[in-house]
Order: sequence, then C-alpha cells, then structure tokens
Amino acid sequence: MSHSSHQIAKIIATPIAVPDPPLLNCAGIHAPYALRIILEVVTEGGILGVSEIPGNERSMEAIRSIQGLLVGKDVLQLSQILSIVRDEIEEPSDERGGAPHDARLAVHIFSAIEVACLDILGKMLEVGVVDLLGGRMRERVPFAAYLFYKRKGAGGTYGYETQPDISGWEYHRQAEGIETEDLVAQAISMVDTFGNKSIKLKGGPFVPEKEVADMHALYDHFGPDMPLRYDPNAAWSYDTGVQWGKKLEGVLQYLEDPVKGQENMANLRKEVNIPLATNMCTTSFSQIPNSVRVHSEDIILSDHHFWGGLRSSIELYRICKTFGRGFSMHSNSHLGISMAAMIHLGAALPEFDYDLDTHYPWQNEDVIVGGKIPIEDGCAEIPDGPGLGVEIDREQLKKLHQNYIDCGITERDDEFEMQKLDPSWRFVEERY
Amino acid sequence: MSHSSHQIAKIIATPIAVPDPPLLNCAGIHAPYALRIILEVVTEGGILGVSEIPGNERSMEAIRSIQGLLVGKDVLQLSQILSIVRDEIEEPSDERGGAPHDARLAVHIFSAIEVACLDILGKMLEVGVVDLLGGRMRERVPFAAYLFYKRKGAGGTYGYETQPDISGWEYHRQAEGIETEDLVAQAISMVDTFGNKSIKLKGGPFVPEKEVADMHALYDHFGPDMPLRYDPNAAWSYDTGVQWGKKLEGVLQYLEDPVKGQENMANLRKEVNIPLATNMCTTSFSQIPNSVRVHSEDIILSDHHFWGGLRSSIELYRICKTFGRGFSMHSNSHLGISMAAMIHLGAALPEFDYDLDTHYPWQNEDVIVGGKIPIEDGCAEIPDGPGLGVEIDREQLKKLHQNYIDCGITERDDEFEMQKLDPSWRFVEERY
Repeated sequence: MSHSSHQIAKIIATPIAVPDPPLLNCAGIHAPYALRIILEVVTEGGILGVSEIPGNERSMEAIRSIQGLLVGKDVLQLSQILSIVRDEIEEPSDERGGAPHDARLAVHIFSAIEVACLDILGKMLEVGVVDLLGGRMRERVPFAAYLFYKRKGAGGTYGYETQPDISGWEYHRQAEGIETEDLVAQAISMVDTFGNKSIKLKGGPFVPEKEVADMHALYDHFGPDMPLRYDPNAAWSYDTGVQWGKKLEGVLQYLEDPVKGQENMANLRKEVNIPLATNMCTTSFSQIPNSVRVHSEDIILSDHHFWGGLRSSIELYRICKTFGRGFSMHSNSHLGISMAAMIHLGAALPEFDYDLDTHYPWQNEDVIVGGKIPIEDGCAEIPDGPGLGVEIDREQLKKLHQNYIDCGITERDDEFEMQKLDPSWRFVEERY
Repeated sequence: MSHSSHQIAKIIATPIAVPDPPLLNCAGIHAPYALRIILEVVTEGGILGVSEIPGNERSMEAIRSIQGLLVGKDVLQLSQILSIVRDEIEEPSDERGGAPHDARLAVHIFSAIEVACLDILGKMLEVGVVDLLGGRMRERVPFAAYLFYKRKGAGGTYGYETQPDISGWEYHRQAEGIETEDLVAQAISMVDTFGNKSIKLKGGPFVPEKEVADMHALYDHFGPDMPLRYDPNAAWSYDTGVQWGKKLEGVLQYLEDPVKGQENMANLRKEVNIPLATNMCTTSFSQIPNSVRVHSEDIILSDHHFWGGLRSSIELYRICKTFGRGFSMHSNSHLGISMAAMIHLGAALPEFDYDLDTHYPWQNEDVIVGGKIPIEDGCAEIPDGPGLGVEIDREQLKKLHQNYIDCGITERDDEFEMQKLDPSWRFVEERY
C-alpha cells in the first residue's frame, strides 16, 4: 500500500528567538532570547504538521542535511525516517554527557519530525495526537510551578529592566528573584495565577546554605500539602549532596539531580531519604541498563525532545513502569507547540505520577494562533482540534524569526551571558 | 474531540475449532481441533476490525463480561479499554506460571481487542497495521520451519489416519513423524515447500538422548548454514539441561526453554555455550526486572496474544533492544488472522533478529478470504489492503464454528488427549 497523499512534500525549518527573562542556573544566566526551531512538514496531500525543538545554526545545518532525503517519504514510516536521521546526523554519543544543556542533534531533530508527522496523522484521522498514543486518560494535565532565581528583566533586551506599571504575575516575571522573600513572592504569585498544585525551584546559582534555606522558606509558607521539588542541576559534589540532601528530608517530594552521574546518584539515594529524579544522569535508552543496575533514580524526567519523540517517550514510560520508576517531564524554555506536545503526552500516560515541569509561564510571547495555552488550577487542557490542536500564527513566526536574525545569538551559552554581568564568572561542574 | 464514527457499536466473538494434526509436545498431544476465537469489532461508522486469539468457553465468558462495557468506547482509547479489561477480568497473576499452555485471559482478550482496533484504524487511514507500528522496515517477514514429533493423522478426527493419495508437504503434514528419518523427511519437505531459512524442533515428548540425536541428524543433513533451534519446553531438570545442552553446542542457533524458571535459565546460560531463548520463563512485563537482573535469556520470544497486543510487543521489543536481548516471536496453532498480525509486527521491527515461529503450515484450513497466506522463500509478504489486510470468509467461519459446537472440546488439554492413546500417561513438569 502506498499513498502519495501521505508523502512529505516539503520540510520548512524556521529558527526563532523568543524573549526569555534572565533566569539563573548553575551554567549561568538565560540570554535575552531563547532559541527554538519551528518545524513544518507538509504532505503531498497538503496537510501541515508542526513541531518545536530547541535549536540553533548547528541544528539548522543538520536539518538541511536531511531535508531533501525526507521528501517523498511517507509520514507513517517513522522507523525509516529515524534511520535516515541517524545515518546522516553523526553524533559522538547518544548520551547527553557532561554538557550543561543537551546539545544532541539527532534525537532532537527526529523528535521534531516525529511530532510533526503525528500532528499530520491526527489531522488525517481528525483526532488528537493523544489519541495516537493510546488515548486520553485525562483531559487536563497538571504542571508544577517552576521557580527560578532571576535578575530583573523581561527578556528581549540586554538591559534587564522591568517595564513600568506592571503587577501580578507579570511583575514577578520581570522582577528580581534572588532574596528569599522575592522568591517566595514569586512562588505565591505563580501559584495564585496558575493554580499549580506543586512547586519546583531550579537551583544551582547559589551556595547550598541559601538554596536549602529557601526551600525551607517555601515549605514554611506553603505547608506540607504543597509538594516541593528542588533541582541543583548536579552542581553539588557527592559530599555536599549528602550533607544538604539530608537537610531537605521531609521537605521535598523529590530531589532532582543533586549530583552528577548514575553511580553518585545511586550512592546518594541510599544516604538521603528523599526520592531522586533525573534528567541528567539517565538521558538515553543506552543509559537505562546501568540506571536499572545501580538504581540511580526513582523518577525519570523525560523530555520528548531529548528522548526521540512522543512514541519513544511512551516506550520510556513503559520501561519506567516495568522497573518501578516514576515518570514525569523535564522542560526548557519553550512555546505553545512544545507545550501542546507535552500535554498530549501527559494526557496519554496510563498512570500520572508527578506534575510536569514547564518554563511556559516565563515566556510572554507565543507562536500559536490565539496566544498562550492557558494554565488554570495548575492544569492545561488538551488543545481542541485535530493533531496537536495548535496552529502557527504567521505574524508571530515572522516576528520571532526576525528576532533570531537581529539578536545575534547563535547558540545557547548561559556562561557567556553571565560573563557580560561578571567577566570573571566561569561555569564549573560540581561548583559546591 | 469525539467521533461517533470511531465508537464501538458491536463486538462479536465466535469460537471456532480448527483441524489440527496430532502434534506431540511435553504436555501430551494436540487434540483433533485447536480452539480459537475470532473477534470482530464493528464501529458506529460501519468499519469492521478482526482478530484471532486462542480461546475456549472460559475466554468466551470473559469476553461476554466486557462486551457491553466496551460498546460506545472509541477504538483509539486503547488505554481506557485496557483498564476496563483489567478491572473486569480478574486474573490470579499477570504471569503465565507453570501451566503447559498460557491460560491467562486478560492479556489475550485485550490483545484481541487491540488488534481489531488497529485493523479498524488502518482501514480508516487506508494503511496497513504495520504503518501504525512505526512503519515498514521490510515487505517480507521470514519464518522458521517448525518441526514436530507427531502421530499419524491430519486432525479433525480422532482416527489419526492419513488420507490416501497425498504427497509432498501434505503427506508429511499427515504422516507419522517420530523416527529420526521421518523427522528429517518432514524437515526436508517443509523447507522444500516453504523455503524456510531456519528450522525449529518442538521437543519434549522423548528422552533427551533421542531428541538431541535428532537435532544432530538435522544438522548433519542441512549443514552449518541452516540455523537450528530446539525447544524442550522446560521438560528438563537443571542437570539434564546442562548435560544435554552441552551436546548441542555448535549445533544450535539458540536453545529455547531447556529448563524452567529464570534462575535455572540464568545458571544454565553460564554453563552451556548456546544463546537461550524463552517464551516460558519471561512472559510478562512484571518478569522483566528479574530477567534483567539474573540474565535468564538472550532472546525473548514474544507473542502479541500473550503480551497484550501489537503496541505492547513493540514496547517489549524496545525493552529487548535497550537491554541487549534478541527479539522474535512464539506461535501456537493459529489461522490467517493471527498470521497477518504477526507479519505486520515482524515487518515493523527496526532490527529483525531471528525468523519468527509459526504453526501455520500445520493447519490446512483457514478463516480468511482467499485461503492461507503463502509462505515462499521462508517469507510471508505483508498482506495487501488496509488494516491487517485480511477478510473473514463467512462460509469458513460458519464451518469452523460448527466444528466447535460438534467437536465437544471445551479447552486445550493435551494430557487428556494423550490419555486416549495411553491411559497411564501423565503430564509431569521436569520429565527428564
């Protein structure tokens, strides 16, 4: 059986730059723009599928190297497409390695194509992508409030200046969030605005004393019914992890990547009585056997961009359930297309273990028609409409692409951005 | 999004009895009929999906208990359907246990519904089921020649008589196959007829001395380029397994279930230098963690009827690849609908490790329009046409259902059948 209407006629990749507030992490600070790529796959039958991945000029080059090879391929032939992507895009390893951000290309790009193909398939059948992943186990997907230490600023400029006359969440989105009281105020505002039922803090920029004290401040304010998570992004040495991990016992729902490497995580897991989550020590299927052998974490935070797509994420979910691991989702700065994909995946999970992470409230622009997908009562509804249920806003795409051309940022480098503020600053693994 | 056209309007289950030759195994002998259930799922939109599973009156009762609950469900909501099946059909364990044949109900019945729903989905999209499983990695799926020790007879009667004037494979399908020369002749005829590129013998009925000698006779005849497999169905004690396994080193491509239990398999694997395969010691996702821990086998022989469907089998495949295990497929006596499902799955596997098993040449009747799916050069092509690509032959279904009513067999009991020939015969685990 062959259907020319399913064949890929065209793949369009558009790099964009999205205003991103100056959020701090152990690798430095977010640049005024986060770089994403919007992928569009058009079939011979004229159906458009869309997706969104992190990306830069290097990713664009890799996409260009496969674009021609995929024209004429059936959108259902995902295993064949994966083979082509793997053959063409050489990667030193399928593991993320020690980089502060996942810089792998093949998994990202295959994920972009897979999600767009599922969007197309959903449109063909007039069903949601969730319905292609085993179906709807819930109509609303819960997300955690994702707190950041931050400098003043809304993103989109290098000035780190807030706008006048703002209030509510928009104030906290732009305000400085470093002192404990500012961080707690950020949390209160986020939870008030979006109704989240759990809170995560991205740690790493400050000494454990401060960050652990801030987690206690959040706990004191929100009480034991608000699950808290904390992620020092493996900035801690093993000894620091044990010492400060113990001080978070009874405070956290889970501790994310306190230390680097599966063995360190496994050892720390025996010392500290808090479930451990990861999106750093177990980031590819090739790392699963050792994860199982040493039991490096209790929860894997998947990311469909990093694990090779939505179907692969469902396979990872099955592995997690088979081996008694929890499953949830990691996030980077992203827009509504990635958000939609995450919601569809989250809605399809037979068991829902932990509210998903998302940076989504930190961006005030979007690339989809109708603007940002609402988060209410901590949940986002499955977008209505076939496929992902989102459509590209052409004006916004044009504007965000112009940002990409104008902003001069060609790759994510949080260290470089930090050095603009403090020239002596260096990224170091195991800072504390 | 809701589509009434995807809703299940009706589920029809028809028990059938298929003439089956008197094949021997460690549990006894095949009855004159093998029992199967043909499942038909019809949507409100009038699309018919079909599937086939092993089954009997007990399975029919279980199907009746869920039939009404599934009416109105969307065929894409497979996770919801699985929940209903699991909630309604109580099962003592999701493991196969020590039974000579897999008697679990929930996985079989969910598999039946899932395959029929995928058949429907394929028909909606006008694509093959393979195209819903990641797509076509090959157009032809290789099967091994599956040899049996057997009594004289074609099945369908208790007389164990051959018909006059038959030749070629049909002669060997009916002839006695116990003496070494008859078994080798059976193998030659099967390979001549179907072009198989590998051979499996179902062992277990006879002492290891004879069966191992027969494997050597096959090796002597076919030479080292014909991969051989041998499956004593865990009829061996551990010591027997080590002793006789060693005598098969250099002769076998793999040794299937020489002994019972993951620990025994794992220990034997260290003693005997032949890859071990299983469809007995690791038969459910709940057994995977211990399989990985002790390394009980090298190859898992999946069976979509036993592992909860085709998507689940793809998930098992991913687990196998993640943990460095080979993946292939087990078979019971079956007709063309199960064969089609196996072909679609086999065609979708990104890596194809070992020719699949099938009993298919042993049945001379079928339930699909056009008669049996051909096996040529050892391969079966993906059936043309949407979904599974097969259609029910209504006359045949009627006839095979009448067999079910007339034959008086209500469950598979190879021991009971054997006792008709030898009243003193008893099934014993670890016979040798």
